[in-house]
Amino acid sequence: MIRVMLAEDQGMVRGALATLLGLEDDLEVVGEAANGDEAVTVAADVRPDVALLDIEMPGRDGLSAAAEIGRAAPDCKIMILTTFGRPGYLRRAMEAGASAFLVKDSPAQELAAAIRRVVAGERVIDPALAAAALSAGPNPLSQRERDVLAAGADGSTIADIAARLHLSEGTVRNYLSAAINKVGARNRIEAVHAAQAQGWL
Amino acid sequence: MIRVMLAEDQGMVRGALATLLGLEDDLEVVGEAANGDEAVTVAADVRPDVALLDIEMPGRDGLSAAAEIGRAAPDCKIMILTTFGRPGYLRRAMEAGASAFLVKDSPAQELAAAIRRVVAGERVIDPALAAAALSAGPNPLSQRERDVLAAGADGSTIADIAARLHLSEGTVRNYLSAAINKVGARNRIEAVHAAQAQGWL
Repeated sequence: MIRVMLAEDQGMVRGALATLLGLEDDLEVVGEAANGDEAVTVAADVRPDVALLDIEMPGRDGLSAAAEIGRAAPDCKIMILTTFGRPGYLRRAMEAGASAFLVKDSPAQELAAAIRRVVAGERVIDPALAAAALSAGPNPLSQRERDVLAAGADGSTIADIAARLHLSEGTVRNYLSAAINKVGARNRIEAVHAAQAQGWL
Repeated sequence: MIRVMLAEDQGMVRGALATLLGLEDDLEVVGEAANGDEAVTVAADVRPDVALLDIEMPGRDGLSAAAEIGRAAPDCKIMILTTFGRPGYLRRAMEAGASAFLVKDSPAQELAAAIRRVVAGERVIDPALAAAALSAGPNPLSQRERDVLAAGADGSTIADIAARLHLSEGTVRNYLSAAINKVGARNRIEAVHAAQAQGWL
Protein backbone atom coordinates (compact mmCIF):
# COMPACT_ATOMS: atom_id res chain seq x y z
CA MET A 1 0.00 0.00 0.00
CA ILE A 2 1.38 3.43 -0.99
CA ARG A 3 0.54 6.07 1.62
CA VAL A 4 -0.13 9.47 0.03
CA MET A 5 -0.48 12.95 1.51
CA LEU A 6 -2.25 15.64 -0.52
CA ALA A 7 -1.68 19.40 -0.09
CA GLU A 8 -3.99 21.62 -2.17
CA ASP A 9 -5.77 24.77 -1.08
CA GLN A 10 -8.91 24.38 -3.19
CA GLY A 11 -11.18 22.10 -1.16
CA MET A 12 -13.14 20.81 -4.11
CA VAL A 13 -10.04 19.91 -6.10
CA ARG A 14 -8.40 18.33 -3.04
CA GLY A 15 -11.50 16.26 -2.26
CA ALA A 16 -11.92 15.15 -5.86
CA LEU A 17 -8.25 14.12 -6.16
CA ALA A 18 -8.42 12.25 -2.83
CA THR A 19 -11.48 10.38 -4.07
CA LEU A 20 -9.77 9.58 -7.37
CA LEU A 21 -6.63 8.22 -5.65
CA GLY A 22 -8.66 6.34 -3.04
CA LEU A 23 -10.26 4.29 -5.82
CA GLU A 24 -6.87 2.73 -6.63
CA ASP A 25 -6.27 -0.59 -4.87
CA ASP A 26 -2.65 0.17 -4.01
CA LEU A 27 -3.01 3.81 -2.91
CA GLU A 28 -4.27 5.23 0.37
CA VAL A 29 -4.70 8.95 1.13
CA VAL A 30 -3.44 9.20 4.72
CA GLY A 31 -3.37 12.98 5.10
CA GLU A 32 -4.68 16.19 3.58
CA ALA A 33 -3.49 19.78 3.95
CA ALA A 34 -4.93 23.08 2.75
CA ASN A 35 -1.67 25.08 2.81
CA GLY A 36 2.09 24.70 2.96
CA ASP A 37 2.45 25.00 6.73
CA GLU A 38 -0.19 22.35 7.27
CA ALA A 39 1.58 20.15 4.71
CA VAL A 40 4.81 20.25 6.73
CA THR A 41 2.99 19.43 9.99
CA VAL A 42 0.89 16.64 8.49
CA ALA A 43 3.90 15.09 6.69
CA ALA A 44 5.91 15.02 9.93
CA ASP A 45 2.92 13.49 11.68
CA VAL A 46 1.65 10.82 9.29
CA ARG A 47 4.99 10.05 7.55
CA PRO A 48 3.54 9.41 4.08
CA ASP A 49 5.45 7.59 1.33
CA VAL A 50 4.54 10.37 -1.08
CA ALA A 51 3.64 14.03 -0.55
CA LEU A 52 1.69 15.53 -3.44
CA LEU A 53 2.03 19.32 -3.22
CA ASP A 54 0.33 22.14 -5.07
CA ILE A 55 2.62 25.18 -5.49
CA GLU A 56 0.32 28.17 -5.18
CA MET A 57 -1.16 27.95 -1.69
CA PRO A 58 -1.78 30.72 0.85
CA GLY A 59 1.06 31.37 3.30
CA ARG A 60 3.98 28.98 2.77
CA ASP A 61 3.91 27.76 -0.84
CA GLY A 62 4.42 24.18 -2.03
CA LEU A 63 8.05 24.71 -3.07
CA SER A 64 9.01 25.95 0.35
CA ALA A 65 7.00 23.15 1.98
CA ALA A 66 8.82 20.64 -0.28
CA ALA A 67 12.21 21.76 1.01
CA GLU A 68 11.03 21.62 4.62
CA ILE A 69 9.44 18.16 4.24
CA GLY A 70 12.70 16.99 2.64
CA ARG A 71 14.44 17.88 5.93
CA ALA A 72 11.70 16.72 8.33
CA ALA A 73 10.76 13.47 6.55
CA PRO A 74 13.65 12.53 4.24
CA ASP A 75 12.10 9.20 3.17
CA CYS A 76 9.01 10.93 1.81
CA LYS A 77 9.00 11.35 -1.97
CA ILE A 78 7.92 14.82 -3.06
CA MET A 79 5.65 15.32 -6.07
CA ILE A 80 4.67 18.80 -7.26
CA LEU A 81 1.23 19.13 -8.88
CA THR A 82 0.68 22.62 -10.20
CA THR A 83 -1.53 24.73 -12.44
CA PHE A 84 1.48 26.52 -13.86
CA GLY A 85 4.16 24.65 -15.80
CA ARG A 86 6.70 27.43 -15.35
CA PRO A 87 10.38 26.69 -16.02
CA GLY A 88 11.54 28.44 -12.84
CA TYR A 89 9.06 26.46 -10.73
CA LEU A 90 10.39 23.20 -12.14
CA ARG A 91 13.97 24.24 -11.42
CA ARG A 92 13.12 25.24 -7.85
CA ALA A 93 11.16 22.01 -7.33
CA MET A 94 14.14 19.94 -8.48
CA GLU A 95 16.47 21.95 -6.22
CA ALA A 96 14.08 21.23 -3.34
CA GLY A 97 14.50 17.52 -4.07
CA ALA A 98 11.18 16.81 -5.80
CA SER A 99 10.83 13.49 -7.64
CA ALA A 100 8.01 14.61 -9.92
CA PHE A 101 6.59 17.76 -11.45
CA LEU A 102 3.11 17.38 -12.92
CA VAL A 103 0.78 20.01 -14.33
CA LYS A 104 -2.96 19.86 -13.72
CA ASP A 105 -3.50 19.97 -17.49
CA SER A 106 -2.46 16.32 -17.67
CA PRO A 107 -5.14 13.61 -17.83
CA ALA A 108 -6.35 12.49 -14.39
CA GLN A 109 -5.44 8.85 -14.99
CA GLU A 110 -1.74 9.79 -15.21
CA LEU A 111 -1.62 10.78 -11.55
CA ALA A 112 -1.79 7.28 -10.00
CA ALA A 113 0.67 5.98 -12.58
CA ALA A 114 3.09 8.81 -11.76
CA ILE A 115 2.85 8.05 -8.03
CA ARG A 116 3.77 4.40 -8.68
CA ARG A 117 6.73 5.40 -10.84
CA VAL A 118 8.03 7.79 -8.18
CA VAL A 119 7.76 5.13 -5.48
CA ALA A 120 9.70 2.80 -7.78
CA GLY A 121 12.51 5.36 -7.77
CA GLU A 122 11.85 7.14 -11.05
CA ARG A 123 11.60 10.85 -11.72
CA VAL A 124 8.52 12.04 -13.55
CA ILE A 125 8.90 15.32 -15.42
CA ASP A 126 7.36 16.64 -18.60
CA PRO A 127 10.22 16.55 -21.17
CA ALA A 128 9.15 19.77 -22.94
CA LEU A 129 9.05 21.67 -19.66
CA ALA A 130 12.44 20.25 -18.64
CA ALA A 131 13.90 21.49 -21.93
CA ALA A 132 12.34 24.93 -21.39
CA ALA A 133 13.73 25.11 -17.85
CA LEU A 134 17.21 24.19 -19.00
CA SER A 135 17.18 26.63 -21.91
CA ALA A 136 15.83 29.49 -19.78
CA GLY A 137 18.78 29.09 -17.42
CA PRO A 138 18.75 29.91 -13.72
CA ASN A 139 16.78 32.77 -12.23
CA PRO A 140 18.75 35.95 -13.04
CA LEU A 141 17.08 37.92 -10.24
CA SER A 142 18.67 38.30 -6.83
CA GLN A 143 16.49 37.72 -3.78
CA ARG A 144 16.25 41.51 -3.22
CA GLU A 145 15.27 42.13 -6.83
CA ARG A 146 12.58 39.46 -6.54
CA ASP A 147 11.30 40.99 -3.30
CA VAL A 148 11.09 44.48 -4.79
CA LEU A 149 9.47 43.29 -8.03
CA ALA A 150 6.94 41.15 -6.14
CA ALA A 151 6.13 44.04 -3.77
CA GLY A 152 5.56 46.29 -6.78
CA ALA A 153 3.44 43.80 -8.71
CA ASP A 154 0.18 45.30 -7.46
CA GLY A 155 0.99 48.84 -8.55
CA SER A 156 2.42 49.97 -5.23
CA THR A 157 4.42 53.19 -5.52
CA ILE A 158 8.17 53.35 -4.93
CA ALA A 159 7.42 54.92 -1.54
CA ASP A 160 5.02 52.07 -0.62
CA ILE A 161 7.58 49.42 -1.54
CA ALA A 162 10.38 51.24 0.31
CA ALA A 163 8.25 51.45 3.46
CA ARG A 164 7.16 47.84 3.27
CA LEU A 165 10.67 46.43 2.72
CA HIS A 166 12.47 48.94 4.98
CA LEU A 167 14.62 50.22 2.13
CA SER A 168 15.32 53.73 0.84
CA GLU A 169 13.41 54.88 -2.23
CA GLY A 170 16.66 55.15 -4.19
CA THR A 171 17.52 51.55 -3.37
CA VAL A 172 14.06 50.39 -4.46
CA ARG A 173 14.46 52.29 -7.74
CA ASN A 174 17.85 50.63 -8.32
CA TYR A 175 16.58 47.12 -7.63
CA LEU A 176 13.53 47.68 -9.81
CA SER A 177 15.50 48.95 -12.78
CA ALA A 178 18.05 46.14 -12.40
CA ALA A 179 15.21 43.60 -12.38
CA ILE A 180 13.53 45.20 -15.42
CA ASN A 181 16.84 45.10 -17.31
CA LYS A 182 17.68 41.52 -16.37
CA VAL A 183 14.40 40.10 -17.63
CA GLY A 184 14.60 42.21 -20.79
CA ALA A 185 11.39 44.15 -20.11
CA ARG A 186 10.46 47.73 -20.98
CA ASN A 187 8.73 48.59 -17.73
CA ARG A 188 7.68 47.27 -14.36
CA ILE A 189 4.45 45.55 -15.44
CA GLU A 190 6.20 43.76 -18.29
CA ALA A 191 8.96 42.69 -15.90
CA VAL A 192 6.45 41.29 -13.40
CA HIS A 193 4.66 39.34 -16.14
CA ALA A 194 7.89 38.02 -17.67
CA ALA A 195 9.24 36.95 -14.27
CA GLN A 196 5.94 35.29 -13.30
CA ALA A 197 5.74 33.44 -16.62
CA GLN A 198 9.20 31.98 -15.96
CA GLY A 199 8.39 31.18 -12.33
CA TRP A 200 11.11 33.55 -11.11
CA LEU A 201 9.05 35.45 -8.54
CA MET B 1 -30.79 10.16 -13.36
CA ILE B 2 -29.33 13.69 -13.56
CA ARG B 3 -27.23 14.15 -16.71
CA VAL B 4 -24.25 16.44 -16.10
CA MET B 5 -21.81 18.13 -18.47
CA LEU B 6 -18.47 19.32 -17.12
CA ALA B 7 -16.37 22.12 -18.67
CA GLU B 8 -12.96 22.65 -17.07
CA ASP B 9 -9.65 23.26 -18.82
CA GLN B 10 -7.39 21.47 -16.34
CA GLY B 11 -7.51 17.81 -17.34
CA MET B 12 -6.62 16.46 -13.94
CA VAL B 13 -9.25 18.53 -12.15
CA ARG B 14 -11.87 17.68 -14.79
CA GLY B 15 -11.11 13.97 -14.56
CA ALA B 16 -11.15 13.97 -10.77
CA LEU B 17 -14.47 15.85 -10.63
CA ALA B 18 -16.01 13.52 -13.22
CA THR B 19 -14.92 10.53 -11.14
CA LEU B 20 -16.31 12.12 -7.99
CA LEU B 21 -19.71 12.82 -9.59
CA GLY B 22 -19.81 9.44 -11.30
CA LEU B 23 -19.74 7.77 -7.86
CA GLU B 24 -23.15 9.26 -7.02
CA ASP B 25 -26.04 6.91 -7.83
CA ASP B 26 -28.26 9.63 -9.27
CA LEU B 27 -25.67 11.52 -11.33
CA GLU B 28 -24.18 10.68 -14.70
CA VAL B 29 -21.43 12.67 -16.46
CA VAL B 30 -22.60 12.66 -20.07
CA GLY B 31 -20.13 15.13 -21.55
CA GLU B 32 -16.81 16.85 -20.90
CA ALA B 33 -15.30 19.98 -22.41
CA ALA B 34 -11.87 21.59 -22.05
CA ASN B 35 -12.87 25.12 -23.07
CA GLY B 36 -15.87 27.37 -23.55
CA ASP B 37 -16.36 26.72 -27.26
CA GLU B 38 -16.31 22.98 -26.69
CA ALA B 39 -18.79 23.45 -23.84
CA VAL B 40 -21.30 25.12 -26.16
CA THR B 41 -20.92 22.39 -28.81
CA VAL B 42 -21.12 19.52 -26.33
CA ALA B 43 -24.14 21.04 -24.53
CA ALA B 44 -26.03 21.42 -27.82
CA ASP B 45 -25.10 17.85 -28.69
CA VAL B 46 -25.73 15.88 -25.48
CA ARG B 47 -28.46 18.13 -24.00
CA PRO B 48 -27.45 17.72 -20.36
CA ASP B 49 -29.74 18.58 -17.45
CA VAL B 50 -26.90 20.55 -15.86
CA ALA B 51 -23.83 22.25 -17.32
CA LEU B 52 -21.06 22.78 -14.77
CA LEU B 53 -18.75 25.49 -16.14
CA ASP B 54 -15.37 26.77 -14.99
CA ILE B 55 -14.93 30.50 -15.74
CA GLU B 56 -11.27 30.87 -16.61
CA MET B 57 -10.76 28.71 -19.68
CA PRO B 58 -8.73 29.41 -22.83
CA GLY B 59 -10.64 31.07 -25.67
CA ARG B 60 -14.29 31.60 -24.83
CA ASP B 61 -14.65 31.76 -21.04
CA GLY B 62 -17.31 30.05 -18.93
CA LEU B 63 -19.45 33.18 -18.52
CA SER B 64 -19.71 33.69 -22.26
CA ALA B 65 -20.35 29.95 -22.73
CA ALA B 66 -23.11 30.14 -20.10
CA ALA B 67 -24.96 32.83 -22.04
CA GLU B 68 -24.62 30.90 -25.29
CA ILE B 69 -25.78 27.60 -23.74
CA GLY B 70 -28.75 29.47 -22.28
CA ARG B 71 -29.77 30.32 -25.85
CA ALA B 72 -28.88 26.99 -27.46
CA ALA B 73 -30.21 24.66 -24.73
CA PRO B 74 -32.66 26.66 -22.61
CA ASP B 75 -33.67 23.66 -20.46
CA CYS B 76 -30.12 23.13 -19.29
CA LYS B 77 -29.35 24.49 -15.80
CA ILE B 78 -26.08 26.41 -15.66
CA MET B 79 -23.74 26.08 -12.68
CA ILE B 80 -20.53 28.11 -12.45
CA LEU B 81 -17.64 26.48 -10.61
CA THR B 82 -14.69 28.84 -10.31
CA THR B 83 -11.39 29.40 -8.53
CA PHE B 84 -12.18 33.07 -8.05
CA GLY B 85 -15.14 34.18 -5.96
CA ARG B 86 -15.18 37.65 -7.50
CA PRO B 87 -18.27 39.82 -7.09
CA GLY B 88 -18.29 40.89 -10.75
CA TYR B 89 -18.08 37.26 -11.88
CA LEU B 90 -21.09 36.37 -9.76
CA ARG B 91 -23.05 39.30 -11.16
CA ARG B 92 -22.19 38.36 -14.75
CA ALA B 93 -23.03 34.71 -14.06
CA MET B 94 -26.45 35.68 -12.72
CA GLU B 95 -27.05 37.96 -15.71
CA ALA B 96 -26.16 35.02 -17.97
CA GLY B 97 -28.89 33.00 -16.25
CA ALA B 98 -26.77 30.77 -14.02
CA SER B 99 -28.55 28.84 -11.27
CA ALA B 100 -25.48 28.33 -9.10
CA PHE B 101 -22.13 29.94 -8.40
CA LEU B 102 -19.69 27.74 -6.49
CA VAL B 103 -16.05 28.36 -5.63
CA LYS B 104 -13.52 25.53 -5.73
CA ASP B 105 -12.60 26.33 -2.13
CA SER B 106 -15.81 24.62 -1.01
CA PRO B 107 -15.68 21.02 0.25
CA ALA B 108 -15.98 18.44 -2.55
CA GLN B 109 -19.04 16.80 -1.04
CA GLU B 110 -21.06 20.00 -1.54
CA LEU B 111 -20.91 19.68 -5.31
CA ALA B 112 -23.33 16.76 -5.75
CA ALA B 113 -25.71 18.30 -3.21
CA ALA B 114 -25.65 21.62 -5.10
CA ILE B 115 -26.41 19.86 -8.39
CA ARG B 116 -29.48 18.19 -6.82
CA ARG B 117 -30.71 21.51 -5.41
CA VAL B 118 -30.34 23.23 -8.78
CA VAL B 119 -32.26 20.47 -10.55
CA ALA B 120 -34.99 20.90 -7.91
CA GLY B 121 -35.28 24.54 -8.99
CA GLU B 122 -33.20 26.23 -6.29
CA ARG B 123 -30.42 28.77 -6.73
CA VAL B 124 -27.16 28.00 -4.98
CA ILE B 125 -24.99 31.01 -4.20
CA ASP B 126 -22.59 31.76 -1.38
CA PRO B 127 -24.42 34.41 0.74
CA ALA B 128 -21.25 36.34 1.61
CA LEU B 129 -20.29 36.61 -2.03
CA ALA B 130 -23.81 37.65 -2.98
CA ALA B 131 -23.62 40.44 -0.40
CA ALA B 132 -20.23 41.55 -1.73
CA ALA B 133 -21.53 41.58 -5.30
CA LEU B 134 -24.54 43.66 -4.35
CA SER B 135 -22.52 46.13 -2.30
CA ALA B 136 -19.85 46.52 -4.99
CA GLY B 137 -22.54 47.52 -7.44
CA PRO B 138 -22.42 47.04 -11.18
CA ASN B 139 -19.22 47.17 -13.20
CA PRO B 140 -18.37 50.89 -13.59
CA LEU B 141 -16.16 50.28 -16.62
CA SER B 142 -17.44 50.63 -20.15
CA GLN B 143 -16.61 47.89 -22.65
CA ARG B 144 -13.92 50.10 -24.23
CA GLU B 145 -12.37 50.89 -20.87
CA ARG B 146 -12.27 47.19 -20.06
CA ASP B 147 -10.69 46.42 -23.44
CA VAL B 148 -7.99 49.05 -23.00
CA LEU B 149 -7.24 48.08 -19.39
CA ALA B 150 -7.09 44.38 -20.28
CA ALA B 151 -4.83 45.09 -23.26
CA GLY B 152 -2.52 47.08 -20.99
CA ALA B 153 -2.45 44.53 -18.18
CA ASP B 154 0.79 42.97 -19.43
CA GLY B 155 2.74 46.22 -19.51
CA SER B 156 2.07 47.01 -23.15
CA THR B 157 2.85 50.61 -24.05
CA ILE B 158 0.17 53.09 -25.10
CA ALA B 159 1.39 52.68 -28.70
CA ASP B 160 1.08 48.85 -28.43
CA ILE B 161 -2.46 49.08 -27.12
CA ALA B 162 -3.47 51.66 -29.73
CA ALA B 163 -2.14 49.45 -32.53
CA ARG B 164 -3.80 46.32 -31.17
CA LEU B 165 -7.23 47.92 -30.68
CA HIS B 166 -7.09 50.17 -33.76
CA LEU B 167 -7.45 53.33 -31.66
CA SER B 168 -5.41 56.53 -31.53
CA GLU B 169 -2.88 56.90 -28.71
CA GLY B 170 -4.82 59.85 -27.31
CA THR B 171 -7.99 57.78 -27.15
CA VAL B 172 -6.17 54.97 -25.38
CA ARG B 173 -4.77 57.47 -22.86
CA ASN B 174 -8.28 58.83 -22.23
CA TYR B 175 -9.84 55.39 -21.71
CA LEU B 176 -6.98 54.35 -19.44
CA SER B 177 -7.20 57.39 -17.22
CA ALA B 178 -11.00 57.12 -17.06
CA ALA B 179 -10.68 53.47 -16.01
CA ILE B 180 -8.03 54.29 -13.38
CA ASN B 181 -10.27 57.02 -11.94
CA LYS B 182 -13.40 54.91 -11.91
CA VAL B 183 -11.87 52.07 -9.92
CA GLY B 184 -10.20 54.54 -7.55
CA ALA B 185 -6.64 53.48 -8.37
CA ARG B 186 -3.43 55.52 -8.47
CA ASN B 187 -1.98 53.98 -11.60
CA ARG B 188 -2.51 51.42 -14.31
CA ILE B 189 -1.20 48.38 -12.40
CA GLU B 190 -3.36 49.17 -9.38
CA ALA B 191 -6.36 49.63 -11.65
CA VAL B 192 -5.79 46.25 -13.34
CA HIS B 193 -5.49 44.50 -9.97
CA ALA B 194 -8.54 46.24 -8.51
CA ALA B 195 -10.64 45.47 -11.58
CA GLN B 196 -9.50 41.82 -11.65
CA ALA B 197 -10.24 41.39 -7.94
CA GLN B 198 -13.81 42.57 -8.54
CA GLY B 199 -14.21 40.44 -11.67
CA TRP B 200 -14.70 43.53 -13.83
CA LEU B 201 -12.22 42.68 -16.60
